[in-house]
Amino acid sequence: MSEKRKIIVIGGDGFCGWPTALHLSKLGHDITIVDNLSRRRIDKKMGADSLTPIAPVKQRLTAWTEATGLSLGFARIDVAREFGRLTSLLASVKPDTIIHFGEQRAAPYSMKGINEKRYTVDNNISATHNLLAAVTGLGIDPHIVHLGTMGVYGYDDDGIEIPEGYLRVYIPGEDRRIVQRDILYPTNPGSVYHMTKSMDQLLFQFYAKNDLLRVTDLHQGIVWGTQTAETRLDERLINRFDYDGDYGTVLNRFLMQAVVGHPLTVHGTGGQTRAFIHIQDTVKCIALAVENPPAPNGKVAIMNQMTETHTVRDLAALVKKHSQAQVAFVDNPRNEAAENDLRVCNRSLIDLGLKPITLAEGLIEETQDIAQKYAHRCIPDMIPCVSTWTDSQRPGVVKSAA
Amino acid sequence: MSEKRKIIVIGGDGFCGWPTALHLSKLGHDITIVDNLSRRRIDKKMGADSLTPIAPVKQRLTAWTEATGLSLGFARIDVAREFGRLTSLLASVKPDTIIHFGEQRAAPYSMKGINEKRYTVDNNISATHNLLAAVTGLGIDPHIVHLGTMGVYGYDDDGIEIPEGYLRVYIPGEDRRIVQRDILYPTNPGSVYHMTKSMDQLLFQFYAKNDLLRVTDLHQGIVWGTQTAETRLDERLINRFDYDGDYGTVLNRFLMQAVVGHPLTVHGTGGQTRAFIHIQDTVKCIALAVENPPAPNGKVAIMNQMTETHTVRDLAALVKKHSQAQVAFVDNPRNEAAENDLRVCNRSLIDLGLKPITLAEGLIEETQDIAQKYAHRCIPDMIPCVSTWTDSQRPGVVKSAA
Repeated sequence: MSEKRKIIVIGGDGFCGWPTALHLSKLGHDITIVDNLSRRRIDKKMGADSLTPIAPVKQRLTAWTEATGLSLGFARIDVAREFGRLTSLLASVKPDTIIHFGEQRAAPYSMKGINEKRYTVDNNISATHNLLAAVTGLGIDPHIVHLGTMGVYGYDDDGIEIPEGYLRVYIPGEDRRIVQRDILYPTNPGSVYHMTKSMDQLLFQFYAKNDLLRVTDLHQGIVWGTQTAETRLDERLINRFDYDGDYGTVLNRFLMQAVVGHPLTVHGTGGQTRAFIHIQDTVKCIALAVENPPAPNGKVAIMNQMTETHTVRDLAALVKKHSQAQVAFVDNPRNEAAENDLRVCNRSLIDLGLKPITLAEGLIEETQDIAQKYAHRCIPDMIPCVSTWTDSQRPGVVKSAA
Repeated sequence: MSEKRKIIVIGGDGFCGWPTALHLSKLGHDITIVDNLSRRRIDKKMGADSLTPIAPVKQRLTAWTEATGLSLGFARIDVAREFGRLTSLLASVKPDTIIHFGEQRAAPYSMKGINEKRYTVDNNISATHNLLAAVTGLGIDPHIVHLGTMGVYGYDDDGIEIPEGYLRVYIPGEDRRIVQRDILYPTNPGSVYHMTKSMDQLLFQFYAKNDLLRVTDLHQGIVWGTQTAETRLDERLINRFDYDGDYGTVLNRFLMQAVVGHPLTVHGTGGQTRAFIHIQDTVKCIALAVENPPAPNGKVAIMNQMTETHTVRDLAALVKKHSQAQVAFVDNPRNEAAENDLRVCNRSLIDLGLKPITLAEGLIEETQDIAQKYAHRCIPDMIPCVSTWTDSQRPGVVKSAA
């Protein structure tokens, strides 16, 4: 480690936040977790639960100290609603870096109904803006690292490689002159959740320009995998494995369906190509971003935090190979293109030294050490996606089996 | 009028909303005003007041009925905070059109301090999103007309005419192919207020695409003028004339400075070119937008609601000509380019039949019938702009007089 930093991890009890906090603590940084525990509350409300047993916060913190001798600070603050407490914490910690995971992060949950749409917008926008307003109000200058999403780019399938945040375009101007601009990639979010991260981009853009805040926005692919080197140290440190229709991403739901003997339900044709990254690589990427703050030059630094692309159909085939499960094609509850191609630039993090874990390598561990080991905790009824994108759509009925 | 419509005017007690409600009522539409009266509250808090005497809401409504025999509905609802009441109203009125002015609309106010920044973001985003969530939740299909701002475009001075919302760009793709896209113009907002209207654009884009809502976004220039044909009918119907440093736009502040014998304070060099429109044209434009709803084609209809451009320095010269006032150049409290050129496409509204009032024509009435007539109500201390864009800036001190 080049330098010991005081780091606040907002959302540090969540799926990405928790292993990030541990990883940065292990690297020698001084970590304070801020979380309102909303993810635990949403689980209770939905009657869902992580397949892996998530220890109460106090046990998690104690286990980390017992396993490593290191300690983590913790403050239960709702960043979207407790501005005064957020400001006080920032004033007393004076962080070098703030990592902001403090947002509702599931696309299907954000489309579940009116209340979930409103919660996602109000919560996510106020959380991000409160952070920016608190930092500028205090006159402090931490590097802000934000977890964005590849979903802000959308899936316009016209042969353009997704760049890292900025797109060079050419525009016919006066006197037959061609004007060149490097613009924020025009967003085309596919859910209310993804829309909030597109709106976050405008918040960061403004504060980077007006107040010269240093911001790194990491547009992350779909995260798979459960454990990192640090979460494996003690079962009380184990990370979340969500498999329900709202919070469980596609690979986890396939793994659970394979374990409980249900066909793998592919939405539509399964031709949707998406970007992926392993949770172990997520925490490494964030550490790389922390170590490499941008200059205060008025511009947000944007990196694509993903390592490989797959179609949903290929993911199903991969899981089927390990499990002999069937594959079933069902109606797509989402409002999205049936098939798309996807090429993504991820040069920045690779150049900073990231060595990706491939899905082919990591899948066996996920199957054996997580899905099979904790299969007794699975509630099969939670697996299907029942949040539909528009009223005319109804949740998936099996149409054909392959 | 082609068709009598049920219209809800959110923010219908404000500077643009009130004359719009009257104009549409006069045209024969059935109007319900929704307002939380926040603009009146902010004035009280700042110790400011409209130069023209604004009657209490009840008196305004009574005066309209006495003057015309027509009646206006009124509901005091905070659209950003009273979602249930908003939904009930929409369910009972079943509007054909909803005009959304319900946002904090002053750039300097939005930069005044942390509380004003937070209020502007939380209020404006929740107001717009609550409206969209209520409409889709109820499954109704009103045409939504929103007041955007020319400020979303920013003032990138590289020879591109500002188009109506969408910019055609060319991008080098695979195999030396050039890909053409029509994108939402890349926003470059200059204040927290303008940023919220940029974020609104993403809200509308998503709901137009996902739920096929019909939305017209009117990117309006700086409005000048006070009265319309309808607000002139009775003094109790008079419209606002804000001249304070936060809510008063540049022309009104120059007019008041001329009346009280203070030099016209030009920020920086006065080379900032901005787009303008008279309030009488504003209400005509909105009526044209109401009569011409877009098809539910997944795309927001965007029109530029402005009629002429001027530099701040030229505005000062124009006011000086009528008043013999001096011009003084002071530090610019805003974080913006000192000089810029601005060409704007406004073809849509001109093609729909708008015949603009020019500043040269309307200025004498503003001087005589408003600024001079109500000069005794002026509080000169309120005129200077004291909201600064960044901490290192201090409010304007006179540097030189011209």
